[in-house]
Amino acid sequence: MTARDLYPYFQAIPTRWKDNDVYGHVNNVEYYSYFDTVINTYLIRAGGLDIHGGAQVGYCVESHCRFDTPLAFPDTVHAGLRIAKLGTSSVRYEIGLFREDDAKPAAEGWFVHVFVDRATGRPAPLPETLRTALQALATAAP
Amino acid sequence: MTARDLYPYFQAIPTRWKDNDVYGHVNNVEYYSYFDTVINTYLIRAGGLDIHGGAQVGYCVESHCRFDTPLAFPDTVHAGLRIAKLGTSSVRYEIGLFREDDAKPAAEGWFVHVFVDRATGRPAPLPETLRTALQALATAAP
Amino acid sequence: MTARDLYPYFQAIPTRWKDNDVYGHVNNVEYYSYFDTVINTYLIRAGGLDIHGGAQVGYCVESHCRFDTPLAFPDTVHAGLRIAKLGTSSVRYEIGLFREDDAKPAAEGWFVHVFVDRATGRPAPLPETLRTALQALATAAP
Amino acid sequence: MTARDLYPYFQAIPTRWKDNDVYGHVNNVEYYSYFDTVINTYLIRAGGLDIHGGAQVGYCVESHCRFDTPLAFPDTVHAGLRIAKLGTSSVRYEIGLFREDDAKPAAEGWFVHVFVDRATGRPAPLPETLRTALQALATAAP
Repeated sequence: MTARDLYPYFQAIPTRWKDNDVYGHVNNVEYYSYFDTVINTYLIRAGGLDIHGGAQVGYCVESHCRFDTPLAFPDTVHAGLRIAKLGTSSVRYEIGLFREDDAKPAAEGWFVHVFVDRATGRPAPLPETLRTALQALATAAP
Repeated sequence: MTARDLYPYFQAIPTRWKDNDVYGHVNNVEYYSYFDTVINTYLIRAGGLDIHGGAQVGYCVESHCRFDTPLAFPDTVHAGLRIAKLGTSSVRYEIGLFREDDAKPAAEGWFVHVFVDRATGRPAPLPETLRTALQALATAAP
Repeated sequence: MTARDLYPYFQAIPTRWKDNDVYGHVNNVEYYSYFDTVINTYLIRAGGLDIHGGAQVGYCVESHCRFDTPLAFPDTVHAGLRIAKLGTSSVRYEIGLFREDDAKPAAEGWFVHVFVDRATGRPAPLPETLRTALQALATAAP
Repeated sequence: MTARDLYPYFQAIPTRWKDNDVYGHVNNVEYYSYFDTVINTYLIRAGGLDIHGGAQVGYCVESHCRFDTPLAFPDTVHAGLRIAKLGTSSVRYEIGLFREDDAKPAAEGWFVHVFVDRATGRPAPLPETLRTALQALATAAP
């Protein structure tokens, strides 16, 4: 498990009523939506990604989550983000989801983006602004 | 349109990546999820509703939304809530969704809950604590 | 209530695990997703709508639902569609959601689309192919 | 990659309008919802799982997906299911998602359920009916 202070960037995500499933906890599917949200918020706000018309788009090629303790509406989830690997056109993110002030993550996962040219769909190098923003969250020197 | 200061209760709801649809705006369906979320957060936090084991549960019997201006990820939505009608076992909520600091709502809607006995499914009077909490958001004296 | 045979077009929509909420029924929000799905499937399949690059896009400006009897995963929902009003650039759909073989709808609603030019965002007349497809589902002569 | 005929059970899942994201493809998050849906439909229909009041409930403890080719609304997804490991109280499922009649999966993943006692939350042996149903989808003799 990765401690809370090893994630350099956090976003607070309030749960929604419909995140809960019939067993009274946030459905496993929604955890991936929290991953998506913290990642893309950072890419847009810090990295200048233009999701509507930018030349590159990021496609998810692989993702994974391990679920430790339940989350439930109306908890607020704090999603921590860090970069485990930064390639020419791909990024491997690690995400920890923390329930309110908990020190231990409720769940941890990873997510791999490949950036492609919007028109051709072929892998394309990360734009420089984006790379700089991602480098700031890297767990180690490149 | 109802001005922002006519809603006595607000909740900030950050949009999520997957709220956006193929046209680049928050999908109309998600607006109802914001309604659900502000309503139930208030019922739980201010009204003591126990969604897991309480004697009464609230079922939505009717809802409506008018969409004025688009919302888009990563906007934060500010959901305003007020009570238009408080019956013995039913509540009519009015909700305004405001994009960031906008004075005009992006969308407005209403939502009717009927509270029923969890075991029998038959309408049941609102618990007193819940009634008091809802009365605090009523637009007029009962 | 509108009987099942008054809807000229139907789509079967299997519920999904996460459609259920903590009370064990399909969440009210998802009903609007069934509306969206039967409408857009028809627009694409019968009306030739190109959601990725077409000159016009349909924006929802108003929607409404009345909920009568609960749906629950793993029910299959049969969504009936008809056209109540066909304007120059707007369409008012009526939708009935039927649980499996039920004769009575579990819920009924309506939904208004305004078609706009994708580039300018201004209302634009419905393409002729789309208009013809919608006319086939109209409840009365224009 | 696992060929289509190596999955002994299939469920057709029509995509929904809101499954598409801003890039025009089904959002990665929804793939996990297809996993959830094929698994739980089988558990309920073939294994007699009672999600509302049964003594055991299945919690997801880990999941994973690799994304190969995009899906997009209004595609129908065919979700293939097989059992890679059947323990005393846990099950490891493998899922392949096929676009319409495609021979190659658009995505493949796995998902681990631990069955717990609904009241105590502690791991509990799989009910016999459920075990028999799952054994029928096992990739190898136990």
